[in-house]
Amino acid sequence: MGIDKTKIRDELLPEVRSYADNTPLADKDTLDCSLGINPYGFPDVVIDIVHSFDVNRLYQYPHSDEAQEAVVKYWQDYAFIEPENVVMTDGSISALNLLVNVFAKPGAEAVMFMPTFTDMVEYSRMMGMKVHGVANSSEDNFKEDVDRLISAITKDTSFVYIDNPNNPTGQVMSNEELGRILSRCEELSVYAIVDEAYADFIPREESAVMLGSKYNHMISVRTFSKGFGLAGARAGYIITNKELVKYIKKVSNPYMMNEMSRAITAAILNYDVQPVEHGTDFTIIKGALRDACGDKLIMAETDDRVPICLLRHIDENVDLQRLLINENILTCSGSEFEPLGKNFVRMRVPKIAEAGKLIQAIKKVAL
Amino acid sequence: MGIDKTKIRDELLPEVRSYADNTPLADKDTLDCSLGINPYGFPDVVIDIVHSFDVNRLYQYPHSDEAQEAVVKYWQDYAFIEPENVVMTDGSISALNLLVNVFAKPGAEAVMFMPTFTDMVEYSRMMGMKVHGVANSSEDNFKEDVDRLISAITKDTSFVYIDNPNNPTGQVMSNEELGRILSRCEELSVYAIVDEAYADFIPREESAVMLGSKYNHMISVRTFSKGFGLAGARAGYIITNKELVKYIKKVSNPYMMNEMSRAITAAILNYDVQPVEHGTDFTIIKGALRDACGDKLIMAETDDRVPICLLRHIDENVDLQRLLINENILTCSGSEFEPLGKNFVRMRVPKIAEAGKLIQAIKKVAL
Repeated sequence: MGIDKTKIRDELLPEVRSYADNTPLADKDTLDCSLGINPYGFPDVVIDIVHSFDVNRLYQYPHSDEAQEAVVKYWQDYAFIEPENVVMTDGSISALNLLVNVFAKPGAEAVMFMPTFTDMVEYSRMMGMKVHGVANSSEDNFKEDVDRLISAITKDTSFVYIDNPNNPTGQVMSNEELGRILSRCEELSVYAIVDEAYADFIPREESAVMLGSKYNHMISVRTFSKGFGLAGARAGYIITNKELVKYIKKVSNPYMMNEMSRAITAAILNYDVQPVEHGTDFTIIKGALRDACGDKLIMAETDDRVPICLLRHIDENVDLQRLLINENILTCSGSEFEPLGKNFVRMRVPKIAEAGKLIQAIKKVAL
Repeated sequence: MGIDKTKIRDELLPEVRSYADNTPLADKDTLDCSLGINPYGFPDVVIDIVHSFDVNRLYQYPHSDEAQEAVVKYWQDYAFIEPENVVMTDGSISALNLLVNVFAKPGAEAVMFMPTFTDMVEYSRMMGMKVHGVANSSEDNFKEDVDRLISAITKDTSFVYIDNPNNPTGQVMSNEELGRILSRCEELSVYAIVDEAYADFIPREESAVMLGSKYNHMISVRTFSKGFGLAGARAGYIITNKELVKYIKKVSNPYMMNEMSRAITAAILNYDVQPVEHGTDFTIIKGALRDACGDKLIMAETDDRVPICLLRHIDENVDLQRLLINENILTCSGSEFEPLGKNFVRMRVPKIAEAGKLIQAIKKVAL
């Protein structure tokens, strides 16, 4: 039996891109370089926290404030944040969805670089927003052009979305450049969503959170899925001004982030683990990778401390994800990132002990 | 500094009701009869599952299918469900939010009894829907009038929302009555969301899930927060036709329900624990409570197997939640449920060992 689709939002009817849904799972012979998680895993303290967890806490609706308080403390030397500035969320995807739900007036417009985090593009459109994409060009090796982004912002823009570090390239915009965008947003009363999903790989002093007190329309989004290696715990948070927090909470529910994840994330932040410690490894691997690219593969603009990067094959007809699967390397296809094609892949580097396998494969594909 | 609200959805600007946010937390001297969780807690098996959990599963994005498979198996003797009919969600609130996001075309209409689960009323409105409330009347002691609901459904209705058992009254609509509503929905291509948050307190053969194969537009929503006593785990699921599942997944994200909750819920369903075993206790307590009500308090239509009920003080000026707090009993105020006032409370009965304290307090308030 078919169903009547007239009651379903029109924007949901077309096909939707999602590399999370479309990327195959790695088998045991495959080196998984697909999803953007920390190849070194989560901090050891997590194991103790889980095994000593007071299971009775699962009985009540999540009420504990410890995660929120730990966020405040984690940032205390960098930015003045109070608990009322923080919303805990089920990972950063749910944070982004909530923000879209706040701003998605019918026909409202979002401005963002492209390529960028696919789910944000798709979800904004699904909720009825127009996405004004500012495409980074291959001539500039996909480096973000801040001036072009700024000139795309008008008083009718509802929000600007910037994932920094950028997904899929891993490039990092400096706080000086970001500040220029934020100033323009402030002038025009446009919100700026800064998605720092990959920012735990760079030091806190480079984070947009540092700028929060200066720019009232800035919204920072963080997650424990990437640098902290806890994608399975579904934990993230939003930092923004207290008034906007109230509206975000209206479209949210008071029970986001389950009780165990609250305990784990609080412990991690209090323990002050730093995923940046792996930056040197990533820098070595990405350097070697760049060398291995030869003439046929090009690595887009990137920051070597961040474990993801975008590779392009100069032949547009090549299916680069397929070529790499043939070499037992799993990546995300560029065709999942608008406006890229199948000659691109987003790759997350492995830990250094497994880097040799990757470098060999890249050399072979680049021949 | 104020923020510019012109970019925020108009529907978010007014105050929103939420008994979850507005109900005070119980202190140690207070008997907590507020939130609708199972007073007997979760099954013992949960403790073993948590403490033997393979923590490495938290590293990857949640990928395991075990919870979905357990749902299929749990229902196999009652209804034919396949994994493609099931969406796992972060509790039933997030399931309901997803469903609203699917159907919330601008100006679309939802039909529902009132009083009903407040968050569904408020979220539907916040996402731009019109809510057509069919108010149950005090003359009928708030019994749901199925004919009135059916006559409110038109071909322009996007969905009908029925929480069964009803929150706040705890009354149960039979599958025969529900079938009449579903038939009308089917004729008019209107979706019917049957929220079975409290349905684990009644046997599976009375569940709307039994009707799924007959009515293509039916959507069942279940949770582990109530009967299974796992509100802190944020776990629930949707059962509906496979085609609609695809649209729900578009507005969802592929990582809903964290990996530990997938493990816990799968174990519980496989273990086949039955919260219905406490029905006798609840029946005894609700009977005693009804006797204690005297002339001033009236218990609305309810099913005694379900641990929640709605109490009304005949004097509209009485703040019944306040009176009960004075007796160290915490409940949810009726003023959080449209169109009720402060002379109502929703009460969840305690376990039988604590029922005496409640009965004494009710007798005192009813004097």
